[in-house]
Amino acid sequence: MSGAKAGSARRFERVAIVGVGLIGGSFALALKAANLCGHVAGIGRGAANLKLALERGIVDAIAQDVADADLILVATPVAQYPAVLGAIAPRLKSTAIVTDAGSTKRDVVAAARAALGAKVAQFVPAHPIAGAEKSGAAAASADLFHGRRVVLAPLPENPAASVQAVEEAWQACGAHVARMSAEEHDAVFAAVSHLPHLLAYALVHEVAGRPDSAQLFSYAAGGFRDFTRIASSHPEMWRDICVANRGPLLAELDRYAEKLRALRPLLERGDAAALEKLFTEARAARERWLAGDYE
Amino acid sequence: MSGAKAGSARRFERVAIVGVGLIGGSFALALKAANLCGHVAGIGRGAANLKLALERGIVDAIAQDVADADLILVATPVAQYPAVLGAIAPRLKSTAIVTDAGSTKRDVVAAARAALGAKVAQFVPAHPIAGAEKSGAAAASADLFHGRRVVLAPLPENPAASVQAVEEAWQACGAHVARMSAEEHDAVFAAVSHLPHLLAYALVHEVAGRPDSAQLFSYAAGGFRDFTRIASSHPEMWRDICVANRGPLLAELDRYAEKLRALRPLLERGDAAALEKLFTEARAARERWLAGDYE
Repeated sequence: MSGAKAGSARRFERVAIVGVGLIGGSFALALKAANLCGHVAGIGRGAANLKLALERGIVDAIAQDVADADLILVATPVAQYPAVLGAIAPRLKSTAIVTDAGSTKRDVVAAARAALGAKVAQFVPAHPIAGAEKSGAAAASADLFHGRRVVLAPLPENPAASVQAVEEAWQACGAHVARMSAEEHDAVFAAVSHLPHLLAYALVHEVAGRPDSAQLFSYAAGGFRDFTRIASSHPEMWRDICVANRGPLLAELDRYAEKLRALRPLLERGDAAALEKLFTEARAARERWLAGDYE
Repeated sequence: MSGAKAGSARRFERVAIVGVGLIGGSFALALKAANLCGHVAGIGRGAANLKLALERGIVDAIAQDVADADLILVATPVAQYPAVLGAIAPRLKSTAIVTDAGSTKRDVVAAARAALGAKVAQFVPAHPIAGAEKSGAAAASADLFHGRRVVLAPLPENPAASVQAVEEAWQACGAHVARMSAEEHDAVFAAVSHLPHLLAYALVHEVAGRPDSAQLFSYAAGGFRDFTRIASSHPEMWRDICVANRGPLLAELDRYAEKLRALRPLLERGDAAALEKLFTEARAARERWLAGDYE
């Protein structure tokens, strides 16, 4: 966590948001609330969504490109980055900073290097940890990032002042900012986010594929509902995350499969003491986490 | 689902609740609210909990045994059943009905046969699907079972009138009652309840056991929290369930491990179309379930 005061944060006269959804829209609203931006332009494919963003005062204008922007946030699905960054590259002011909100970072960095060339020094990769059930400009709010984490994965080429400016912008949105490499980011999120999504999708798909699935679902209750909540996540988004981060995710999947293999004999021989020990340790770790011991 | 009207349900003049926790206490309150019982005696090991149950009007008296009871609900942890049923056996009126609230049924039936002998005809196994985070008499409420499911697993020896009486008592509590064999019950709940618990405990334990667990937990967010909520469940209770139902649970664990093995190559070769198809099908099945298509 870096501790710059929001009061000292740099103000961006012209901001462009590419993809004015929950994340992009909330970032615009939070910057406005912190009085850290002037004019905000919204860029995107969904005309109805952009119109709503304009009506809600999230953006001040709908634009076709990022010309004149001092700060650009790319908040589209990651699979669109090559096209989006390719379109930005020729229009980019030399003083502008580009940042993003993608859930994976190694692939984003590769796409940025390919699309931006030497201008990649202007791109500061970031990942705000703030998903939600809802999406679109309709769901955007100025306080979405309050108390949430944002990971910056700065490039060696980034000027320190640019990284600092992005960090302070997120801090002004109420977020706690941490820095790590793209590799470290992707390994961490493979473990605590991508793997659980894959496991939840797999369980629901397993049950749904059986001849007696209707009976099974009819007895599924609150535990099943919470365990599988993330299996209602957006399939295209998670397809992209899984493909982009498949190396670290495969490693996590293999570790987990090995864990289940190790657990199997405890169950097979009815080893009550060993099962209770494992459950007790797991619960204790989770309670420490919920209590904030790891923040 | 049987459709007897609550209005025609049998009234029990003397009810005994063994284990006046969330489930036992709520059953007593619901029977009282439906005016289906007279005097309710509470039996248990926790003196403070029983005192609270008396103060809250859940029970009318604290008792040492089930003498004179017309209806007895055993709602203790399943591991206590041999002792509890053994104590009940010599005191049981020939006209009394015993039922229970255990999460597994084959082991409960075996314990009942061993403890009750010929009197097992008086024991109607049941499982109300109504867990909650909270426990104890303090958390009991008359409407806990409203809209919830209760599975009855009647024995061949049970008189039809006894099964009907238990069914109507649960219906009077607001529950939807279904009947199935103990074997079918244990197979269904291994799939939709016991396996998810095991998977959630395993994931938390895996993460907690790593050198970098503090960092990993510090980036875990809402998806991880919901996926692992059931890893905060009571370790002793889940130890007992896993041991009692280890046959069906092992079969489910093996199916799930096979599912992960089948999924692995999709990830390895970055098969975006196949992953999206799986995620889309899983989400659609879950949405149908949430919409009530399987009720």
